[in-house]
Amino acid sequence: MMQTSRLSINLATIREQWNLLEAVEACARHGIAAVDPWRDQVAAVGLEESVRALKDNGIKVSGYCRGGMFSTDGQFGWHAAIDDNKRAIDEASALGAECLVLVVGGLPKGSRDINRARHVVADGIAAILPHARANKMPLAIEPLHPMYAADRACVNTLAQALDLCDSLGTGVGVAIDAYHVWWDPELTAQIARAGSAKRILAYHVCDWLIPTRDLLLDRGMMGDGVIDLPHLSSLLDKAGYRGFIEVEIFSVADWWKRPGDEVLRTCIDRFDGAV
Amino acid sequence: MMQTSRLSINLATIREQWNLLEAVEACARHGIAAVDPWRDQVAAVGLEESVRALKDNGIKVSGYCRGGMFSTDGQFGWHAAIDDNKRAIDEASALGAECLVLVVGGLPKGSRDINRARHVVADGIAAILPHARANKMPLAIEPLHPMYAADRACVNTLAQALDLCDSLGTGVGVAIDAYHVWWDPELTAQIARAGSAKRILAYHVCDWLIPTRDLLLDRGMMGDGVIDLPHLSSLLDKAGYRGFIEVEIFSVADWWKRPGDEVLRTCIDRFDGAV
Repeated sequence: MMQTSRLSINLATIREQWNLLEAVEACARHGIAAVDPWRDQVAAVGLEESVRALKDNGIKVSGYCRGGMFSTDGQFGWHAAIDDNKRAIDEASALGAECLVLVVGGLPKGSRDINRARHVVADGIAAILPHARANKMPLAIEPLHPMYAADRACVNTLAQALDLCDSLGTGVGVAIDAYHVWWDPELTAQIARAGSAKRILAYHVCDWLIPTRDLLLDRGMMGDGVIDLPHLSSLLDKAGYRGFIEVEIFSVADWWKRPGDEVLRTCIDRFDGAV
Repeated sequence: MMQTSRLSINLATIREQWNLLEAVEACARHGIAAVDPWRDQVAAVGLEESVRALKDNGIKVSGYCRGGMFSTDGQFGWHAAIDDNKRAIDEASALGAECLVLVVGGLPKGSRDINRARHVVADGIAAILPHARANKMPLAIEPLHPMYAADRACVNTLAQALDLCDSLGTGVGVAIDAYHVWWDPELTAQIARAGSAKRILAYHVCDWLIPTRDLLLDRGMMGDGVIDLPHLSSLLDKAGYRGFIEVEIFSVADWWKRPGDEVLRTCIDRFDGAV
């Protein structure tokens, strides 16, 4: 039984319906306290305009999506990736985000060496960490489901993300997304570990549908799939997490096609009971 | 650099082209030493006929696919699942298979309790293990990729499968399929553990394609994707595995549409270099 005051809307959830300004106004209209915008959404309307819209509507920013991609974007090179991540930190600061979410990147084009990609990612986060610390912007490493190991993120379990945090020190933590971690046999133990280490920076929810028709864009509304979200939320609660709970749904064939107001109403309705 | 004498063809790879009898003859024609048939393929031509075809063509049976599904097939009930698995053990024995591969099952219909499903699976294997031991038929638990946790197998990492083996004792081991485990940050350590415990009963190969267009039926030919199979094979080798290496490719849009002889030739060509 989640209090709706903890609900945040990741703006990917309504990206096909509204631009950032419209989405922020809609969230305010529905009494939603926080959002998590994506960089392209901010870029489309401008950073200053985004900051103003959030402030005018009294909307908090539970996180900012996303930095990372240290190992994947080979065409721009390492230094370009580092510079781009520093700009993401600056934008997150301007927006007043609680953390910058990192989707760390998969295999470089043409590579089959996932161990090397993992080292590149660790080096990448280490390289931007001083800038993040100077800006007091926590970096939230998001372990992604193993089905994204090749093309999106080679950090694929909570244990692996926490090991990375341990090696990096202060200023980093994890974003725990139900979709990415629900299957993990070590989940209970690793959430407890994350809580003890004060590493939990964000909690994202959606649902795993049966069947899942697309690896990326067929995520479900909470309650429509097989993830035991109330149980997961109770684990986060036991681990001491009291922050926002972000709804993040990529759904090209369903929720992205519905009116934005219906999507937001459904998120609110499902939040109490299915989360 | 794999010797082709270790190549086995999982008959799912050519299931759309040939029935079991035709497939066995084709493999013999190509000088392939072993196959792994599926139960429906055996049922379609009859068990005795299958045994005869294998014997007549001098083809070994590296494994038999598949037992399991303890938690998923709710409509038939627990006892039906146990009985069916015992029949699978009998068939595997008749075929002279080196092991019975277990795809253990996912969530029961309507359930969100993956922990309970995992207990059901452990109980299921324990229930058929005496029959397997009496028939000297090793049971190979196959951890499946986490993207199948909901609908096919709630055993999703090698560590989890080996923990299960530890709790069950003798007569069980693991089938290590490159497609299911390649992403695992613990892979090197867990393969070494499996080797030390003499638990490696089978090694399956195919490749992970970018993009992957279907969760189940878009697996790639070795060399066409991002899995570092020679490295994985070297880990198996270091762990002491000297058995067959099975090619298992589900590919509805590509390899299942090509002539069977072309598929087999390609498997052989790729085996030396890409595996």
